[in-house]
Amino acid sequence: MSRWPSNPRGRLEQAAMDLFIEQGYDQTTVAEIAERAGLTERTFFRHFSDKREVLFQGGELLQAAMVEALAAAPPDATPLSAIHEALAAVAGIFDERHDRARLRQGIIDAHPELQEREGAKMAKIATALAEGLRARGVTDPDARLAADAGIAVFRSAFAKWVRSETGDMSGTMEGCFVALEKLVEAGR
Amino acid sequence: MSRWPSNPRGRLEQAAMDLFIEQGYDQTTVAEIAERAGLTERTFFRHFSDKREVLFQGGELLQAAMVEALAAAPPDATPLSAIHEALAAVAGIFDERHDRARLRQGIIDAHPELQEREGAKMAKIATALAEGLRARGVTDPDARLAADAGIAVFRSAFAKWVRSETGDMSGTMEGCFVALEKLVEAGR
Repeated sequence: MSRWPSNPRGRLEQAAMDLFIEQGYDQTTVAEIAERAGLTERTFFRHFSDKREVLFQGGELLQAAMVEALAAAPPDATPLSAIHEALAAVAGIFDERHDRARLRQGIIDAHPELQEREGAKMAKIATALAEGLRARGVTDPDARLAADAGIAVFRSAFAKWVRSETGDMSGTMEGCFVALEKLVEAGR
Repeated sequence: MSRWPSNPRGRLEQAAMDLFIEQGYDQTTVAEIAERAGLTERTFFRHFSDKREVLFQGGELLQAAMVEALAAAPPDATPLSAIHEALAAVAGIFDERHDRARLRQGIIDAHPELQEREGAKMAKIATALAEGLRARGVTDPDARLAADAGIAVFRSAFAKWVRSETGDMSGTMEGCFVALEKLVEAGR
C-alpha cells in the first residue's frame, strides 16, 4: 500500500483516477471511489463537491502558484515578461505529473462538459493574472491582454506537452512564447 | 408595435431583454417572456432551451461570421493577419447593437454562472478559428496560438467597447491589436 498517499484528499484522488482508468469516468460512482480509498462517502464530500471536482482540484493550486510568482517578478518587468515568469515558475509542477495529466486529458477529451469546465478554469486563471498585473500598476487593456496572451501560450504549450512522450513543460512553453513573438511579428 | 421584430425569435429576444431590464434577470420567467411577446411558451422553447440562451443566441452567428471571414482572407495572409481580418470583418455587427450589448453585459456581470457560459462561448469560437486556420494549412501549435491570441485581443476590445459611451468596435479592436504587438515587443 506504499503507493497510497497518506492524506485523505490524495488517497481519494488516487482511487478516483484508478477507477476512471479501470472502468471509465461515467461508470464510476462516489461510493466506489470512497470504498477504494478506504474512506467514507462523507469524507469524500468533505474534500470534493462531486467526482468531476477530483479532476479540477489542481486548478486553484495552479492559480495560486502563478499569482504568487507574478507578484514576485522584478518590478521593472514588462507586463508580458512578468506573465512569462509566472508561467515559467509553475512549469516544473507539470513534469512531475505528466502520466497523470495524460490520463486526465483522455477523460476530458471524451467529455464536452468537462472541456467546458476546463475552459472556465483557464478563464478564471486569466482573470486572476490580469488582477495580479493591475496590482503591479499595469492598466487595462494591457493587463487583460497580457494575461490572456499568456494563457493562450500556456494552453498551446499544455496541449503539446500533454500529448508528448517525454514531458518537458518548460521547454515547450518557451517554444510557444517564441512562436507567439513570431506570429505577431509576421502579422504586422 | 413597430418596435417589435416580426419574426418570433426576434420578438422573444426583445421581450426577454425588456423584462430582464424592467424586473431583473432572476425574477423573469419564460412564461412572462412568452406573454410579453404575444407568443406561447411552446414557441419560446422551439427557439431557446431556456431564458439563459436568449443572452447567448448571438454566439453561433458570430462564430459563423468569423469562420466565413477567415476562409475568405487572402491565401498568403499570415495566421495572425488572417485572424485579424476575420475579427475586423465582424466588428460592424457590434456597433449596431451597442445599447443592447451594454444591458446584456450588466446582466452577465451580475451572474457568475453566465460569465462561465460566456467564457465557454469564447473558447468555442477560439476552437473554431483554430480549425479554420488548419483548413488554411496552418499547423499546431501556431493555429491554436494565433486563434487564442486573436480571441485575447477580441475579449480585451469587447470589454473596452461594451463599457464605452460611443461604441467603435473596429477602432477599439485595431487599438488592441497594436497593444498586443507592443506587449510582445516589450516582453522580448
